[in-house]
Amino acid sequence: MLETLDLDKKIDKEAYDKSFPELRNKLRDLQRQAFDAKIPVAVIFEGWDAAGKGETIGKLVERLDPRGIKVHPISAPLEDERLRPFLWRFWTKIPGRGEMAVFDRSWYGRVLVDRVDKAIKPEQWRSAYNEIAQFERMLSDDGMVIVKFWLHISEKEQRKRFKEIEKSKFDKWRVTKEDWENHKLYGDYAQAAEEMFERTNTAYAPWTIVEATDKRYRLVKVFKTLADAMQTALHARSEQPAPKRAARASVSVQALKEMETILDKVDLTKSFKRKEYEEQLQEYQVRLRQLEYRCYEERRPVIVGYEGWDAAGKGGNIRRVTENLDPRGYSVVSIAAPKGDDATHHYLWRFWRQIPKAGHLAIFDRTWYGRVLVERVENFCSEAEWRRAYQEINEFELSLSNFGMIVVKFWLHISKEEQLRRFKEREKIEYKQYKITEEDWRNREKWDAYRQAVVDMLQNTSTTYARWTIVEANDKLWARIRTLRTIVETIEEGLGVKKSGKEKKKKKVE
Amino acid sequence: MLETLDLDKKIDKEAYDKSFPELRNKLRDLQRQAFDAKIPVAVIFEGWDAAGKGETIGKLVERLDPRGIKVHPISAPLEDERLRPFLWRFWTKIPGRGEMAVFDRSWYGRVLVDRVDKAIKPEQWRSAYNEIAQFERMLSDDGMVIVKFWLHISEKEQRKRFKEIEKSKFDKWRVTKEDWENHKLYGDYAQAAEEMFERTNTAYAPWTIVEATDKRYRLVKVFKTLADAMQTALHARSEQPAPKRAARASVSVQALKEMETILDKVDLTKSFKRKEYEEQLQEYQVRLRQLEYRCYEERRPVIVGYEGWDAAGKGGNIRRVTENLDPRGYSVVSIAAPKGDDATHHYLWRFWRQIPKAGHLAIFDRTWYGRVLVERVENFCSEAEWRRAYQEINEFELSLSNFGMIVVKFWLHISKEEQLRRFKEREKIEYKQYKITEEDWRNREKWDAYRQAVVDMLQNTSTTYARWTIVEANDKLWARIRTLRTIVETIEEGLGVKKSGKEKKKKKVE
Repeated sequence: MLETLDLDKKIDKEAYDKSFPELRNKLRDLQRQAFDAKIPVAVIFEGWDAAGKGETIGKLVERLDPRGIKVHPISAPLEDERLRPFLWRFWTKIPGRGEMAVFDRSWYGRVLVDRVDKAIKPEQWRSAYNEIAQFERMLSDDGMVIVKFWLHISEKEQRKRFKEIEKSKFDKWRVTKEDWENHKLYGDYAQAAEEMFERTNTAYAPWTIVEATDKRYRLVKVFKTLADAMQTALHARSEQPAPKRAARASVSVQALKEMETILDKVDLTKSFKRKEYEEQLQEYQVRLRQLEYRCYEERRPVIVGYEGWDAAGKGGNIRRVTENLDPRGYSVVSIAAPKGDDATHHYLWRFWRQIPKAGHLAIFDRTWYGRVLVERVENFCSEAEWRRAYQEINEFELSLSNFGMIVVKFWLHISKEEQLRRFKEREKIEYKQYKITEEDWRNREKWDAYRQAVVDMLQNTSTTYARWTIVEANDKLWARIRTLRTIVETIEEGLGVKKSGKEKKKKKVE
Repeated sequence: MLETLDLDKKIDKEAYDKSFPELRNKLRDLQRQAFDAKIPVAVIFEGWDAAGKGETIGKLVERLDPRGIKVHPISAPLEDERLRPFLWRFWTKIPGRGEMAVFDRSWYGRVLVDRVDKAIKPEQWRSAYNEIAQFERMLSDDGMVIVKFWLHISEKEQRKRFKEIEKSKFDKWRVTKEDWENHKLYGDYAQAAEEMFERTNTAYAPWTIVEATDKRYRLVKVFKTLADAMQTALHARSEQPAPKRAARASVSVQALKEMETILDKVDLTKSFKRKEYEEQLQEYQVRLRQLEYRCYEERRPVIVGYEGWDAAGKGGNIRRVTENLDPRGYSVVSIAAPKGDDATHHYLWRFWRQIPKAGHLAIFDRTWYGRVLVERVENFCSEAEWRRAYQEINEFELSLSNFGMIVVKFWLHISKEEQLRRFKEREKIEYKQYKITEEDWRNREKWDAYRQAVVDMLQNTSTTYARWTIVEANDKLWARIRTLRTIVETIEEGLGVKKSGKEKKKKKVE
C-alpha cells in the first residue's frame, strides 16, 4: 500500500486555519456523543520514528475531555508483561464503553519491530497475526471503534529529521544510536509493514496510511479520519438520519477532496514516436510469446486485469498484447454489468469461474474491481459492501497468488480533457460511433466520484503479490508499450527469469 | 468436540413417525420461503465413511423442489480442477440467491483426507485453513446460510457397518480396499477432524456434529438443524415476529430436548470411602505441590476453571486443591456478576486481567463461561453474543495455550435431587445458611435451560488444547480426588513428565 502514496501532499496555512479548529471542535463533540452512546474507541498510532506520532497524539488529547481518554505509550514489554501472553498488556488496556484509548505504538510491534529485530521466532509473529485478527474482531463485534494510523515518511525524510533534531541543543537526546540503527533497516521495516497492511487491513479495523511529510496535512487527515469513524459508528447506533452537524464535517472532507491525488501526479505527457513504438512493440510481443510457452511448460497461470477511464484505450491495448500470442494459450474476458446467474451469485463468482487454468493466460477487460468502482459510485451496492470488498479482493488475489498465479493489474489513466476529445472524436467518426453512449456521458459527469473511488482502490488493493500499475495513457502508443513491458517483466519476475544488464538499466532510467 | 458426544442417542420409531414427516414438510416450506426471500443456502456433509451421508442427502432431496436444489458429490479433483486453486471447484458451485446447494464432502477434504494422506504439503493445508475461513466469511457476509454437518460414528461401529455391507451380495462393491485402509487410520482422521472443528467452528458457519449411530436420530437432527438455520435467516431478513409456523418446528425441538444428554450419562454413583479418600488426597496434594514448584522453575502458568451447578461443592473442592500449596505460587479468583469497570468492558477483559503469570497457578471459581451459561439463560446478552462466544472463548484459550499455559476446566455435576437435598440442608444448618439464597432457588427452576446451555458449552468448547472434565460430584470425596488427579495429570502431561506404569494402568482402568 505504501508505493501508491503521494508523500508531497500538503495543506497550506490558510486552508488549515480554516478547517482544523472546526475539526477539533467536532471531535470533542463526538467524544461526548460516544460517551453518551457508550461506544468505546481505540486509536492506534504506528509509523516511522520522527514521523510525528507524539505531536499528533498531543494535539488529539489537548482539547478532548481528559476524563474520557487515556494514552498508552507502548515500548518494550516489562518483566511483568513478558511473563504473560503478548496480548495481555493490550487486553488489560482496552477502553471501557464510552471511553477512548490512544495507543502510541501497539500490538503491531509484534509483527514489526519484534519480527525485524528477530526478537521472537518466526512462528511467534506468524501466530501473532492470527491472535491480532481475533483480538480486533472480538472488540469490534463488541461495538468498539478501532482506528489504526500508520504515519508515513520516506527514508530520506527520516534522515533529514533525525539530523535536524540532533542539531537542537534541547532535543538531541531524542535521537538515539538505536534510532539510527533502525533507520538503516528502513527497507526491512517497510517490507514488514506492507505485509502487515495486507494481512490486517480489515473492514472492521482498517488501516489509514497518513502521508506525514507535511504536518498540517497529517493532523487534518488524522482528525478527519477519526471523526468520520466515530460519526459512522454513532449513526449506525442511532439508526437516525445524519444529524445536521454532519454537514460541518463535510467541509473538511471537501478541503481534502480538492487536494491532489496520486492520479494528478501521473505524467500524462509521456509519449512515443511511431518508429520507437514499433521497435519496442515487436520486441515485447516476441518476448511475451516466448513467455507464454514458458508459462505453459511450467504450468504457471497468468491473469491480467484492465481497469481505466472510459475511452482510455483498453480495447486497442489488449489487442496489442494478444495479437502475437498463440490463441490456444490465452483468453480475453469482457466484463459488463452482471446479468442472469452472474447477478444472482456472490459478485466474485463469475470471476472465479473465469480464472485461467495452470499454464494459461487470461486477460480481463474490466474486472472484479467493478465492485469498488462502478458499483460504489452508482450505489449498486451498499457502503458496507464496497468497504468490505477491499479485503475480499485482496484475499481473492492472495488465493490466486498462493496457487502460483502471476497477477498484473492496470489502471489506464487519461486526463478529463483527453477523454472529452476522444468522446467527441467517437461521435464524429462513423465507425467509432458504437463506442460512445449516453452512459459514457453520464459517467463523465461523475468524474470526481470515480476519481475518489480509484484512489481508494489503488490505496487499498496494491499488495506485494498483486501490484497496481498506473499507465499513462494520454498517448496510446506509450500506454501499449508500458502495459506490454509490465506484463513481460512481471511474468519474468514471477518465473524467476534473470534480467539482462540492459533490462535493468532501462528500468532504472525510467 | 468429539469426546463429549453420546453416540448411543436414538429416537424410537413412534417419536420419529410423529416428528419426521412434519419436519420434512417444514423444510419444503422453508425452501420456498428462502427462494422468495432470495436467500442462498449451502449444506455441507462431512463425516466417516458409512456414517449415512448418502442416505441423509437422499432423504433431504427427496421432498424438496428439485428446481431449487443441486447436489454436488465431491471426490478427488479432476485434471481440470487440479489446474486451478483448490477453492475454484467450490466457488464455481456456490448456490445463487434463493438456491440450495448440498455438498457431499466439501472443501474440508483439503484439511482432512488430503492432509492425513499427505497428498499435499503441510503449508498447503495450513494455508487452506485461512482460505476456507475467508471463503465462508465472504459467503456469509453476502447473506448465505451455511450449515456444516459432521456425521459421526465410532471406529467400532464403522467396522461393523463395513462388514455388514460386505455380506450383502448387491452392496459389497461399496466397501473398497481403500475404505479399509482409511478405517485403519481412524485415529489420525479423528485428530485432524478435531483440529478442523476447533479452527472452523465459526458463528457464521458453525459445525453440527451429528451422532449418527441411530438412523432416525441422525435424520431428525440434520433436518431440524437445517430448518432452524433457515428459519433464523428468514426471521433476520424479514425483521418480523416469528410466523405461526415456528411453533410447529418447536415440537420437534421438544422431542430432541427430552432426549438424554451427555450429562445424563454421568455416573453419579461414583464414590470413595473416607479412608481411601484420605490416602489419595494426601498423595495428590503432595504431587501437586511438587508440580507447583516445577511449574515455577519452568515458568509454565496453569489455569484451572471451575463451573458447576449451584451447591455442587466448588468451594470445598477448591480448598482441597490449595490447602497444601505454597501460597506465593497460586491465587483463587472468585467470579460474580460483573460490576463497575468489569461491566463496562468486553466480557473477557476481567479474565485477561486475572490470568496467572508464567510459573503461577490461578484457580477460577466460576469463569468466562458465564457468558454461555448464566448470561445466555438469563438473557443478559443476546443470542448472537453467546453464540459468538464459543469461538471467542476457544480463541482466548488458544492464546493462553500458545503461550504455554496449561488449561484445566471442570464441570461439577450433581443430580437435580442431590441439589435439592443440599439446598434443604443449607437452610437447616445455621452456619451454612448464608450459602443459600432466593437466587439459587430461582436458578433451580431453570434447570432444563441451564442443562441445555451446559451441553452446548461442553460440545462447543472442548478442544485438544483445553479439554473439559465432567466431574461426578454427588459424592464430594470422589469429586475432590477426581479434580486433584486431573489437575496433576494434565500438568504432568503439559510438562512432558512421564507417567509411571502404575499411573497408566490406573488411567486405563477407570
